[in-house]
Amino acid sequence: MDKTAALEIVKPHLTEHRYIHTVGVMETAVYLADKIGNLHQNEVELAAIFHDYAKFRDKEEMRSIIRQQEYDKKFIDYGDELLHAPAGAYLVKTEIGIDNEEILSAIFWHTTGKEDMNNLEKVLFLADYIEPNRIFPGVEEVRRTADENIDEAVVMALRNTITFLMKKQQSVFPKTLYAYNDMVYKIKRKANRGG
Amino acid sequence: MDKTAALEIVKPHLTEHRYIHTVGVMETAVYLADKIGNLHQNEVELAAIFHDYAKFRDKEEMRSIIRQQEYDKKFIDYGDELLHAPAGAYLVKTEIGIDNEEILSAIFWHTTGKEDMNNLEKVLFLADYIEPNRIFPGVEEVRRTADENIDEAVVMALRNTITFLMKKQQSVFPKTLYAYNDMVYKIKRKANRGG
Repeated sequence: MDKTAALEIVKPHLTEHRYIHTVGVMETAVYLADKIGNLHQNEVELAAIFHDYAKFRDKEEMRSIIRQQEYDKKFIDYGDELLHAPAGAYLVKTEIGIDNEEILSAIFWHTTGKEDMNNLEKVLFLADYIEPNRIFPGVEEVRRTADENIDEAVVMALRNTITFLMKKQQSVFPKTLYAYNDMVYKIKRKANRGG
Repeated sequence: MDKTAALEIVKPHLTEHRYIHTVGVMETAVYLADKIGNLHQNEVELAAIFHDYAKFRDKEEMRSIIRQQEYDKKFIDYGDELLHAPAGAYLVKTEIGIDNEEILSAIFWHTTGKEDMNNLEKVLFLADYIEPNRIFPGVEEVRRTADENIDEAVVMALRNTITFLMKKQQSVFPKTLYAYNDMVYKIKRKANRGG
């Protein structure tokens, strides 16, 4: 599936605002993937185009999918904002027919992050956070950092996410902290080895 | 063991600075415990007096204790600052002869916190954070909150701790986040039930 066809398919599932965001994520993801290298542009595009496919689905439908597929129950317990990523990965597979596990995993983890993210997972997570239509305190610093070092930018995005949730006295999905701890550990190990 | 005898015992194990801190923790813990009610003052005093018993022990000795006792290996992996709490609980039992499980558990968890803390664990965790000799940004707000609502103050202390570590790009002991999530959940549940 090429990106034009994919954008056509996703469009009716999104609001105009969310479609514009999706195109921003796609362009940013391709830009970040170019920096990393070794990623297939078509996979990057499809992951980005379909990352919010389930954003406007019925919440109870998404909860049912998570229960039936025996995904981590915490996706249900930690706030409705988390439902669309795992439910979306499932629906993109079953309704759109995309069965590339790399793409589906990037969609599955794009909201929370997780430990040991691969490059496509990092690229989608970060692109979703910094695409040009995003406006919130601190986003510019993450954008600048992404130009220099994608891992550092992912750490920043994870840290900002955790801090933001805690400021609102909201619970934090444990894997978001695991993602942070894992990346901090790997960045330090890399620095200790001299790069 | 009364508090005078306990203070005599702990004194040679601490620096003067740390001894003054310990007395501050003891007085603050008794003050907080009075607010909560239902805690034995002598247990509160002993937990506070011995909470930093192992603070100046050899780090490798503390790591050995954690390994031999099969405590969570993460106490070793997440920074040397975490060693003295579990190692201290063990040494207070084996060297001082205190075998009250409530006291030992409060000492064990006083640095990291954990999910489902009981009142003595909360009191020691919070007293250690806000005793009068502590000076750092935000401590006054936590002190004021502790006068009103101990659970809210514990959440604040946990949040500040996590934020502080992340600002320094340090890893965060997972149970510290679990403690935060657990308390936030219980505070919300209590509020939904109308207090």
